[in-house]
Amino acid sequence: MRRSLLASSVIALFLHPAIADTPPPSDSAPLDGFSAQHARTEREWENKFRALPSAQNERDYMQLLAARPHHVGSAYDTQNAEWILSKFKEWGLDAHIETFKVLFPTPKRRLLEMTAPTEYIAKLQEPVVPEDPTTNQVDEQLPTYNAYSHDGDVTAPLVYVNYGLPDDYDRLQRLGVAVKGAIVIARYGESWRGIKPKVAAEHGAVGCIIYSDPRDDGYFYGDVFPKGPMRPDQGVQRGSVMDFASNYPGDPLTFDRGDPNAPRYTANDAPSITKIPTLPISYGDAQPLLAALTGALAPEEWRGALPIAYHVGPGATKVHLVVESNWDIKEVNDIITRIPGSSEADEWVVRGNHHDGWVNGAEDPISAQVALLEEARSFGELLKQGWKPKRTIIYCAWDGEEPMLLGSTAWAETHGRELQQHAAVYINTDGNGRGYLFMEGSHSLEHFMNEVARNIEDPETKLSVFDRDRLADIVKAKSEDERKELRQRADLRMNALGSGTDFTAFVDHLGVASLNLAYAGEDDGGIYHSIYDDFYWYTHFSDTNFVYGVALSQTVGTAVMRMADADVLPYEFTDFADTMQKYAKDLQKLLHDKQEEAREREQELKEDAFRAANDPRQPTMAPPAEEIPPHLNFAPLENALDALNKSAERYKAVFNKAEASGFLGSDQQLAALNQLLIQSERRLSDSAGLPRRPWYKHLIYAPGVYSGYAPKTMPGIREGIELRHWQEADEEIARVAKALESEAGLLDSASADLEAFAR
Amino acid sequence: MRRSLLASSVIALFLHPAIADTPPPSDSAPLDGFSAQHARTEREWENKFRALPSAQNERDYMQLLAARPHHVGSAYDTQNAEWILSKFKEWGLDAHIETFKVLFPTPKRRLLEMTAPTEYIAKLQEPVVPEDPTTNQVDEQLPTYNAYSHDGDVTAPLVYVNYGLPDDYDRLQRLGVAVKGAIVIARYGESWRGIKPKVAAEHGAVGCIIYSDPRDDGYFYGDVFPKGPMRPDQGVQRGSVMDFASNYPGDPLTFDRGDPNAPRYTANDAPSITKIPTLPISYGDAQPLLAALTGALAPEEWRGALPIAYHVGPGATKVHLVVESNWDIKEVNDIITRIPGSSEADEWVVRGNHHDGWVNGAEDPISAQVALLEEARSFGELLKQGWKPKRTIIYCAWDGEEPMLLGSTAWAETHGRELQQHAAVYINTDGNGRGYLFMEGSHSLEHFMNEVARNIEDPETKLSVFDRDRLADIVKAKSEDERKELRQRADLRMNALGSGTDFTAFVDHLGVASLNLAYAGEDDGGIYHSIYDDFYWYTHFSDTNFVYGVALSQTVGTAVMRMADADVLPYEFTDFADTMQKYAKDLQKLLHDKQEEAREREQELKEDAFRAANDPRQPTMAPPAEEIPPHLNFAPLENALDALNKSAERYKAVFNKAEASGFLGSDQQLAALNQLLIQSERRLSDSAGLPRRPWYKHLIYAPGVYSGYAPKTMPGIREGIELRHWQEADEEIARVAKALESEAGLLDSASADLEAFAR
Repeated sequence: MRRSLLASSVIALFLHPAIADTPPPSDSAPLDGFSAQHARTEREWENKFRALPSAQNERDYMQLLAARPHHVGSAYDTQNAEWILSKFKEWGLDAHIETFKVLFPTPKRRLLEMTAPTEYIAKLQEPVVPEDPTTNQVDEQLPTYNAYSHDGDVTAPLVYVNYGLPDDYDRLQRLGVAVKGAIVIARYGESWRGIKPKVAAEHGAVGCIIYSDPRDDGYFYGDVFPKGPMRPDQGVQRGSVMDFASNYPGDPLTFDRGDPNAPRYTANDAPSITKIPTLPISYGDAQPLLAALTGALAPEEWRGALPIAYHVGPGATKVHLVVESNWDIKEVNDIITRIPGSSEADEWVVRGNHHDGWVNGAEDPISAQVALLEEARSFGELLKQGWKPKRTIIYCAWDGEEPMLLGSTAWAETHGRELQQHAAVYINTDGNGRGYLFMEGSHSLEHFMNEVARNIEDPETKLSVFDRDRLADIVKAKSEDERKELRQRADLRMNALGSGTDFTAFVDHLGVASLNLAYAGEDDGGIYHSIYDDFYWYTHFSDTNFVYGVALSQTVGTAVMRMADADVLPYEFTDFADTMQKYAKDLQKLLHDKQEEAREREQELKEDAFRAANDPRQPTMAPPAEEIPPHLNFAPLENALDALNKSAERYKAVFNKAEASGFLGSDQQLAALNQLLIQSERRLSDSAGLPRRPWYKHLIYAPGVYSGYAPKTMPGIREGIELRHWQEADEEIARVAKALESEAGLLDSASADLEAFAR
Repeated sequence: MRRSLLASSVIALFLHPAIADTPPPSDSAPLDGFSAQHARTEREWENKFRALPSAQNERDYMQLLAARPHHVGSAYDTQNAEWILSKFKEWGLDAHIETFKVLFPTPKRRLLEMTAPTEYIAKLQEPVVPEDPTTNQVDEQLPTYNAYSHDGDVTAPLVYVNYGLPDDYDRLQRLGVAVKGAIVIARYGESWRGIKPKVAAEHGAVGCIIYSDPRDDGYFYGDVFPKGPMRPDQGVQRGSVMDFASNYPGDPLTFDRGDPNAPRYTANDAPSITKIPTLPISYGDAQPLLAALTGALAPEEWRGALPIAYHVGPGATKVHLVVESNWDIKEVNDIITRIPGSSEADEWVVRGNHHDGWVNGAEDPISAQVALLEEARSFGELLKQGWKPKRTIIYCAWDGEEPMLLGSTAWAETHGRELQQHAAVYINTDGNGRGYLFMEGSHSLEHFMNEVARNIEDPETKLSVFDRDRLADIVKAKSEDERKELRQRADLRMNALGSGTDFTAFVDHLGVASLNLAYAGEDDGGIYHSIYDDFYWYTHFSDTNFVYGVALSQTVGTAVMRMADADVLPYEFTDFADTMQKYAKDLQKLLHDKQEEAREREQELKEDAFRAANDPRQPTMAPPAEEIPPHLNFAPLENALDALNKSAERYKAVFNKAEASGFLGSDQQLAALNQLLIQSERRLSDSAGLPRRPWYKHLIYAPGVYSGYAPKTMPGIREGIELRHWQEADEEIARVAKALESEAGLLDSASADLEAFAR
């Protein structure tokens, strides 16, 4: 939304607070990045497009793709890849398969038994559900396991570590409990699962069990499968435990497939493979173990929904854990489809979703793969009708996402140089549900995605998905400030990208502006990575009539078309600048809070207050004294933000003026400008990478070293502060400042270009 | 603490933030209300006193008093009363029993069965625990029931209503669920239990089941009895469900025993008896019922710790509930012991604790009854040694507290006129545990109790109990503001008095300044009002060596002695004024928040935001529109607070000066001053009583009509706002203002008196 629109929208809100719903776009409404004439044509094509995706087709695709287990290396995974290829071809698209060889371990031996104080042998098997016809494909199902767990055979006392994150170990220390030599049992949730064995190993544990507590996705949230959607007592979350966030995702043997000089590893020394054996279990199997624990009572917020008193141990409870894998090399098959651009073919719009699952994988990932397929089929239709996208569109059905982004990373690394030169955007999905549009991505695309969201109708409420998101956020807001922003800011805020799905190599490694989209929020379930994530479950409990599958096709397809067709790529930088400002403030607050906490702790230690608060029968030790964080020099960042803000405002004004005049530059001038804009996200990267993880080159977004899924924004600074590397944090401030200044410079060049050809 | 001390204490804190521990009192330290010479004598007597209470005695008393079930009307209850009487006499004290006849229903028929969708008959029986020798006294145990439940035999659909409070019914309404004609199942907690059937009946329910969720006092908080202290699956909380807060406590047949013109009722029309049959059950009995419920999923914060998905119903689940009582008149026996005062015998210090239990009642109430007994025995010793308290001390062992303050209310009403004239303070306890000193009471006693707390040693940490409370509160504080106040305010804040124990008639009905004290916070348990609250449980899991029993004797005994011996009664009014200021601000914030909430709701209704946030498969309706609260005239209250503050400061200055000079007034002058001061709490009462509940005459403290236990401060105003009686709230502001002005006038008179005889 442009400034003039923003102002009138605020006034409209004030005059008519009752109805702020966006009217459906008229065909003559302006469209960011399009001349008036091109906007009209674009709207016509988009309207045609949005009428094409079919719920019945999506249902049929899912029934076929999720009919059998289709994990990496399985026969059905290959069969699916070939079927997808054939569909792309059937729709008249230019598709091929790219195959990569990767390390993918599968279970050889798995044993978990409690040997004291009583005996219990864990079942490690998900039962067949008679009414669900695909749960009985036992021979083809991958057993429950964590891929890339180290092999091991260990017997040790058991300790409960909550979610198994660094703060949890601090808390254990205060309870007088160490895990050195122990096997830890952690619950799923709050982080990438691979963080749990990583942190356990850092604290000296010799094994790691991860279980699904019913508090997190079991009966606490509703009836369990098959009566309801939640995790049944023997349901297990499979999953990779690769330590990708501290190292790199993709094949553990290859640091960077696109760089012949990058280090190569073997299965024995690959840094992203866990250091200790790790096995996931059900809450049915976890309950006897947890119930047998003695020792300190677990802190209140650690207690789950099992009908037991949660203790942390250690005590007499001993377990024996055996994990052994077949460390085989397997093939992954990415299906790549190209719709060549008509005039700016060297600018690429890349769109992807993986097709491999842990088992039948109906929700994850097929529910969004079917949306992708309907987008592609619809584009095939439009092409036949004469639609000519300006830019090249590349559709990718990735293989090997589940083990840790094997297919997408291999492809992105292999084509890294081309992508850095040509890719304007990568748009990802990875499963779909019901409810609200969830948007996360690069903030130069925030305004763009908001505009798309205003043009998509929510199937349940018939509001635009933008309005549904905004109004529901108002209802759910926790503070007056939040509500005020939701009512007054033109665009909804978009979350930053963390990791856990296929955008990772694009944004973090290559610096390609990226988006990740899904409908969710009304689709609670507890079948994630289990045999129960199948067609039966999805069609009983999630987007049962595939209306949100169609909405996802409409949303992503509209975004793809708009990016592919625009005269000038519709990046917008005032939202970006505003977000960077917010991140900088968050960091200053983080540092300030850490200083205050350390000061308060110091005072309480001096006052001996922890002794006063200690219950001698349930002792808690005083926390260790902690250095008070020094002040850091945020001035370079603040100066850079001022410059960025100014440049972003200028670019916006110039852009709006040029658009109103119809973008009068020559094709060559526009191409040069677009090429410059494509580089805008690259300016936020540094080829040197982040401290201790050079594969991650983006200075604004990265997965957290101790969170995995969740993003750390301005990660060098943030993790410098969190990990108490003060000098590093100071240096990272300067590096981020430099990148933002460079971005401001690029915007000034773009503004000058636009002004030049508008004259 | 006087102003000069306060200032220096703040400086000391600033110079040495590390150590703010109060030094043990030297014998020459000043003592509020005592001349220097009398302070020295008092300290000597107090030191002698605090050496006397014996842990072994307390243990022996408990073993005897809790040996058998001793509820109202039981043989053992009478036997205990006689034994207590004999002990008082043995210690040389002047004791007698006062007997009152009261309505006390006991179970005749109890039945709870689920008739659909499956059948289940509730056990309604607490199992014998072999290692616990008193759990097998089945013949003498009162069966599990709620006293003063209406008789009834009803069959109806079941609805889960969380804690069964008004907000819960608002939430149910939004889920589209009505309870008209239904039987509700509510969980114990968050309110006086009698509020649950009251609110259920107001919404048209025909029966009420109350169960103990393991989230609230079961395995969620630790191992269950006998392995740990928490509630086992068949443990039941008995208890009264009398609607005392909206009407009056004590015998339901008697509105005011001291007033011959007050209305009298029968069991059929007594307003404090529930309107619908009510029965308490265990979580073992509740689980099949709750698991059978269908309908909407319970809101997240409603879900307990049972291993089920909590639904609210109604659905096919039907239950049949039968409750029938023997509506008998029983006798309660209060043991009253008088230590006559030497010089100001007409000023009384009253101290009480009940002796009846629901079953064996070791913790509730015997753990504090034994502390009271040791205080009395020690006073007997001191008297023999020559101690001569200035004022009359009255020790009361109440009967019939559990059904709802039957013994204390009958006695207080019967002796109401005398008490209003003579009683300087009522000090209550009702059970004791381990950990921190919990103080609540009239705020003219806040400073006094803080001073006492500075002179008592915590058995575990050897800090003063004041310092332990203060430092632990710092550790637990949620905000910097809280910590700042804890470090800078001289006195710890004291909670206001709600109800649920025997101070009620004294403070709420008679306007006698009151205190309620206990050690707690390290004594988690789930045996409340069950057969497991016995000597075995207490000596395994609570204050097992009775060191906190001794600390309680020392604390209360010191307070009693100081009040009984002071030259001038050590009330202090700047803490009081400060607290009133705080309450007034809380009320203004309450009104403001309600205005903001109503405005926000209005806006969201206009925006149709609730429709946007609605999940059609789990529908939630928009809340009804609500009138925006008008502004109220707080000016009279603010003016009164200014006057009060000024008068309190003046009195403090004059008092300190007079104390430094040795309180040079004649005995007559001092007696007149003390008599005036005794009236200070009475000025906060109004004989007209609170709106719709004339028995409650205190304008500052009352139990909440919809909370019961928890206090409502400035209740006329607060409940006027909460219940949206705007005109009433406005009138109540004026009434409270008038009372506070009257209090300020009294303080000015007292100041003038002190100044007169100090000249």
